[in-house]
Amino acid sequence: MFRNFKMVSRVVFGRGSFNQLNDILAEKRKHTDSFMVFLVDDVFENTGLKNRIPLNDPDMLIWVNVDHEPSTAYVDELTRKAGAFSGQLPEGVIGIGGGSTMDLAKAVSLMLTNPGSAADYQGWDLIKNPAVWHVGIPTLSGTGVEVSRTTVLIGPEKKLGINSDHTVFDQIVLDPELISNAPADQRFYTGMDCYIHCVESLKGTYINVFSQSYGEKAFDLCKEVFLEDNPENDDKLMMASYFGGMSIAYSQVGVCHALSYGLSFGLGIHHGIGNCIVFDHLEEFYPQGVREFREMMKKHDIQLPRDFGNIEDEKLEKMINVALILEPLWENALGTDWKSMMTRDKIKALYISILGL
Amino acid sequence: MFRNFKMVSRVVFGRGSFNQLNDILAEKRKHTDSFMVFLVDDVFENTGLKNRIPLNDPDMLIWVNVDHEPSTAYVDELTRKAGAFSGQLPEGVIGIGGGSTMDLAKAVSLMLTNPGSAADYQGWDLIKNPAVWHVGIPTLSGTGVEVSRTTVLIGPEKKLGINSDHTVFDQIVLDPELISNAPADQRFYTGMDCYIHCVESLKGTYINVFSQSYGEKAFDLCKEVFLEDNPENDDKLMMASYFGGMSIAYSQVGVCHALSYGLSFGLGIHHGIGNCIVFDHLEEFYPQGVREFREMMKKHDIQLPRDFGNIEDEKLEKMINVALILEPLWENALGTDWKSMMTRDKIKALYISILGL
Repeated sequence: MFRNFKMVSRVVFGRGSFNQLNDILAEKRKHTDSFMVFLVDDVFENTGLKNRIPLNDPDMLIWVNVDHEPSTAYVDELTRKAGAFSGQLPEGVIGIGGGSTMDLAKAVSLMLTNPGSAADYQGWDLIKNPAVWHVGIPTLSGTGVEVSRTTVLIGPEKKLGINSDHTVFDQIVLDPELISNAPADQRFYTGMDCYIHCVESLKGTYINVFSQSYGEKAFDLCKEVFLEDNPENDDKLMMASYFGGMSIAYSQVGVCHALSYGLSFGLGIHHGIGNCIVFDHLEEFYPQGVREFREMMKKHDIQLPRDFGNIEDEKLEKMINVALILEPLWENALGTDWKSMMTRDKIKALYISILGL
Repeated sequence: MFRNFKMVSRVVFGRGSFNQLNDILAEKRKHTDSFMVFLVDDVFENTGLKNRIPLNDPDMLIWVNVDHEPSTAYVDELTRKAGAFSGQLPEGVIGIGGGSTMDLAKAVSLMLTNPGSAADYQGWDLIKNPAVWHVGIPTLSGTGVEVSRTTVLIGPEKKLGINSDHTVFDQIVLDPELISNAPADQRFYTGMDCYIHCVESLKGTYINVFSQSYGEKAFDLCKEVFLEDNPENDDKLMMASYFGGMSIAYSQVGVCHALSYGLSFGLGIHHGIGNCIVFDHLEEFYPQGVREFREMMKKHDIQLPRDFGNIEDEKLEKMINVALILEPLWENALGTDWKSMMTRDKIKALYISILGL
C-alpha cells in the first residue's frame, strides 16, 4: 500500500505575493460577521510586517511566542482563546512565522473542531473532524512544515506530531521576501533542517522515485543556497524547503531527527539547532553529508553550542525513550534489523558524545 | 499578481498502486446506486488491464477512441452518454489512458455540471460550476496533464484548452507499471512533450524559481530517461512528466508548442509527435535543446515523418491563425516585442520548412 498523499490545495509563490493575502481571504469571508484568526510570531510585533497583515474589523490577531518549541498545552490555550472570541468558529486560521508558528496554526485549526487536548491526538491519524480552513505563510524556510501532514508538538510525555490528512494546509503563501530578514543563525539552522532531512531520506531504505526526485532537487538547492552566493537564494531556499517537505511523502528522516527529538524534549532545544548539534556527530552514519554540512557551517561562520551543563541520568533516560519511540525513523535509517544496532546503550553513547558529558 | 495555483488534491505514486483504485473509489461511493464513469483508452479493450479495472455493478465503462486528438464534439457526445446513463450524476469520472484520454476525462467531468458545449469553454476561467470528482490514471507520461489546469481540445475554430481551477484532477494514481508497455515511439513522442516544454519554459521570460526548480528537475530526469539506461526509467519518466506539469504553474511553453498547435489543428497530427516534428526545425530558437533532442532520437531510433503531401494555402493560413492566437506562448519565448519578430510571414516560412512544402 502506497500512501495516498494529501496535497496543499493552493500555493501562491512569488516576491511580494504576501500582498495578495487580502484577496485570498476575501473569498472565504462568507458573512459580515465572519472572522479570521491570525497567529503571528511575536518577533514581528514591532515590525513593518504588522501593518501589512490584512486585518478586518471582526478578525482576531494573536501574537504567539515560540521561544520554546510549541507544546500541546500552548495549543490548548490558544484554541480556548480563539474559540471564545465569538459565538462561532472562525472562517480561517492564518499562521505567519517560522516552523513553530506554522505548527501552532495547524494545531489550533485542528483543535477548534476536535474535542479534548492536542495531546490526545499526538500520533498517526487520530484526528476525526476536518480542521478549520488554514493558511501557512512562512517567514523561515527549511522545515517543510508548509506541505507536511504533521504538526510537531511537545506533549506531557513525548515530542510527537499530530499526523493527519486534515493537518495539511489548505493554502500556502510563499513570498521569498518574507524570509530575507531572518537572523543569519536561525536561517542557517532552519535551512539545515531541510538539508539534513534530504541526506537522511536519500540514504534511507524507504525512499521511492517520487520522494527521490523531490529530495535530490531540495538537496541541490540547499547546497546552492549555502555554498554559493546567488541573488535568488531566498527564492531557492523557499523552494528547497517545499521540495524537502514533499520528499517526505514516501520517505522518512533518520538517525539525526530521532536523536534531535530527544534533545528537544529533554533540553528544550529548538528543532533546527538541535538537528545541527546532533548531525555534527553522525559521521559514522552520513559521512559525506556531515563533511558538506561542516563546509556550510564554516562558510556561514556558525558556532554550535557545545556546553550543555550536567544532565542527570533520569533525564537522559527520558531522552532515550523519546528517540526510541520513533521506530519508522530508525527502520528507514538502518533497515528492519535496526533494533540490534541501535540499542539503548548505543543511543546513550551517542547522546554522551553529542552533549560532551 | 501571482497565480494562486490549484493543486491536485491527492496523489498516490508507486509500482502497483493501480491496485489501490478500488479502495480509493470505495470512499466516494456514497449510496448504493452511486456510480462511477470510467473513460478508458480503447487500446486496452483486449488487454489484461481491462480485468483489473474495479468496475462495480452500477458503474459505466466507456472505451474512448483517441486516434484523433480529442475534440469538443467528442466531449459533448461522451458527456451526453454519461449524463443519460442514470437519473443522477456519477460520483466520479475516472480516466485511464494517455494524454488524450486524461483530457477527455477532465472535460467530461466539467461538462457534466456545466451547460452547453465544451467549445463554449475553450479559453481561460470560463467554467462556472465545479466538476464531478475526477481521477487521472496515466498510461503514458510526458504531457503533464495529470497536474495541469487545462484540457486541450480541438474545437470548430481552434485548438485551445479549457483552462480552469476546476479542470485540475482531484486524485491521480501514478503507477509506473502502467506505462511500461507503451509502444516505443509513442513513449518517445509523449516523453518529448515534457522535454520540449522544459526547454521552452526554462528559456522563457515568464519563469520564476518555483517553476524553474520543477522544470530543471524534469529536464534532468528526461535526459536520464532518454539518454541512459536505468531500471527505474518508467518511474523517472512519470516523475519527469509530473514535475514538467508543475513547472507550468509560473511559466509557459514557447515557439514549438505554438506551431505544434497549428499542426494538430490543420493536419490532425497528435500533440506529442507534432512537437517533435516542429522542434527538429527550431535550432534558431533552442540550439542546445534541439541538439540533445536529436541525440535522443538517434538513441531511440526514431524516424520522424517528413512527407505531409501538399497543403493548400487556405489551410496554411488557418494553421497560422491557430498558432498566432497563443499570445502568452510567443511573449514567453520572445519577449513583449514578439509581434515584430513573429510575423505571419515568419510563421509561414517556418511551417513551409517544417512541412517540406
